[in-house]
Amino acid sequence: MVLVRGLLGDVLRRRRLRQGRTLREVSADARVSLGYLSEVERGQKEASSELLASICMALEVPLSDVFAEVSQDLAREEALVAAQAQALTSQPLVLTRPAVDSDVVASAA
Amino acid sequence: MVLVRGLLGDVLRRRRLRQGRTLREVSADARVSLGYLSEVERGQKEASSELLASICMALEVPLSDVFAEVSQDLAREEALVAAQAQALTSQPLVLTRPAVDSDVVASAA
Repeated sequence: MVLVRGLLGDVLRRRRLRQGRTLREVSADARVSLGYLSEVERGQKEASSELLASICMALEVPLSDVFAEVSQDLAREEALVAAQAQALTSQPLVLTRPAVDSDVVASAA
Repeated sequence: MVLVRGLLGDVLRRRRLRQGRTLREVSADARVSLGYLSEVERGQKEASSELLASICMALEVPLSDVFAEVSQDLAREEALVAAQAQALTSQPLVLTRPAVDSDVVASAA
């Protein structure tokens, strides 16, 4: 299951670091506690709509930009999860066939 | 301030209605209470990342699609808010000028 808060936190941290700003600076501008912003960036806490808007305003980045970036990251994660699921379902077939063959050979010998 | 949860709820409701499904059906498939799903759709409750993933899975729609649609709606709202702010700052100028002109005419007459 792909979780949004981790990807959202990554996008917010990338945007902040790209501006060369500290957690302290952005948390002060957004009027959120430093600890809260840090947890949001690390995907450990869900950001409410109000606080997300405040953080984006402090970063001077439109919410629509942040959501577009999260959408792209989600699409990448979804493709990865789909590829892993595909690999998991195709692996047993490859592993099972030789085992069945050798069983037949062993019992025929 | 543009709030995400209202736009997110709108997108989820539109997706559900497009499939001709009821709140009861989707809430059962997503294993969330009907009341909770209803509140999320109406933008009255924030959806946690886990429950958002469950709802999207129940709707058989990738999270990335939902976020792309929310991003588009956010961009529209942001443009609207910017236009309103622009109108508010330009309105006093438009209203003031004729008043000043007529004052001059009145005092000249």
